Amino acid sequence: MKKPLILVVNDDGISAKGIRNLIKIMNDFGEVVVVAPNSPQSAKSHAISIETLIRCDKVVFDNGPQKEYACSGTPVDCVKLAVSQILDRKPDLCVSGINHGSNSSINVIYSGTMSAAVEGALEDIPSIGFSLLDYDNNADFSEAVPYIRNITKKVLEHGLDTGICLNVNIPKSIKGEQLKGLMVCRQANANWEEEFEARIDPKGRKYYWLTGKFVNYDQGTDTDEWALANHYISVVPVQFDVTAHSSLSSVNKLFFDE
Amino acid sequence: MKKPLILVVNDDGISAKGIRNLIKIMNDFGEVVVVAPNSPQSAKSHAISIETLIRCDKVVFDNGPQKEYACSGTPVDCVKLAVSQILDRKPDLCVSGINHGSNSSINVIYSGTMSAAVEGALEDIPSIGFSLLDYDNNADFSEAVPYIRNITKKVLEHGLDTGICLNVNIPKSIKGEQLKGLMVCRQANANWEEEFEARIDPKGRKYYWLTGKFVNYDQGTDTDEWALANHYISVVPVQFDVTAHSSLSSVNKLFFDE
Repeated sequence: MKKPLILVVNDDGISAKGIRNLIKIMNDFGEVVVVAPNSPQSAKSHAISIETLIRCDKVVFDNGPQKEYACSGTPVDCVKLAVSQILDRKPDLCVSGINHGSNSSINVIYSGTMSAAVEGALEDIPSIGFSLLDYDNNADFSEAVPYIRNITKKVLEHGLDTGICLNVNIPKSIKGEQLKGLMVCRQANANWEEEFEARIDPKGRKYYWLTGKFVNYDQGTDTDEWALANHYISVVPVQFDVTAHSSLSSVNKLFFDE
Repeated sequence: MKKPLILVVNDDGISAKGIRNLIKIMNDFGEVVVVAPNSPQSAKSHAISIETLIRCDKVVFDNGPQKEYACSGTPVDCVKLAVSQILDRKPDLCVSGINHGSNSSINVIYSGTMSAAVEGALEDIPSIGFSLLDYDNNADFSEAVPYIRNITKKVLEHGLDTGICLNVNIPKSIKGEQLKGLMVCRQANANWEEEFEARIDPKGRKYYWLTGKFVNYDQGTDTDEWALANHYISVVPVQFDVTAHSSLSSVNKLFFDE
């Protein structure tokens, strides 16, 4: 039987510790091809390169069996280029990450990591985004490994519903506290309260840095934020149909019911 | 009574014909503040600037009553900066566009125009993205104007459900064929089939241009693609909760039912 073909991508860049860990795990499951950004592409969401050319060069990082390509584009460009130009067949799985930092709740729509997984779903490939709630470049991924293995095994064996991918977030390791396992949940209703920091440059001109405070408005115990706060790994099925089906009738009423 | 405060944004850049037209329309409805990119930001999706500083300078384009700011960031940056730093109160409406080109079906998730509207919804502002199916810089927006007026009036009067915004796409003007009116519909299941064009640069190194062919797999007559093909203006309510609620049970089964 042919080994499964696994596409690995991320948004922190091809040399980040998170993707290096993910590649090692995936090498045990199949034939691995990495197509990942050659520089950090965090918070690039579902952006694609339509005004700039894209470079994509073969690279070698270690002596693992995987093939690797470093791409100048966004995470979504990486998936598109891999499927269209680099892979000789449709991959059996697309995994994105392991992201350094959370992609839970509303972060999912800003995240390059998750947009790569969504693009995988759009290409009809079972796709998973993995994120660890630790922004440290040198974050410790070891506790997450058995869970990533288990999720990967299940998705490779059984696939996923058409039109969805998985958003997996893993709590930061805490000494003396073990992960409690997986929890399948919904995206919490949480958001960023912006706080721009205005500064003056050496020429006297104003500029801004985007900062912000994450605020969870959601009291539900069925959300990713609840799961993570209670030391579960959150698994949210994510779809690319953004139609607010439950509002179709109210919008119809707005325009036609007078 | 205080005039409504209207935030205008786009992704084609502050000097594009589409936003100039939209500003003129909005000046009749309220106090208009424009915060729009100083350069084209198409296909930037929900990207935000976390690695680069943001400039935002007051500019004057014409002798209209609106206030205008040209911003170096993405469309979503523009909305965040407007709400957090520029406006003295929460706007009553956020309008984005008029985009030069379609944001129907799957284009919604790549679009900077629509992501600005989604960000408006995230900030709890009634928000609408307008797009005309004509990529021409000099596109004719005149036939769309009465419909944009009508939609704006209704949303200002009645608001929108919490957590949604509107994705309005307007067919290209065809001589001898009139627009048939609005149709409230769902995002069609359509997608881009990638076709990268590989080229060799003067130094002999390969590079790519992203191109593609839009393919509609959806036979439904309740979709935006159907509406537009039949010369209706499509109105899709769009939400930022991307949880695939209908797949929660199948994913639960995948991990816990053995």
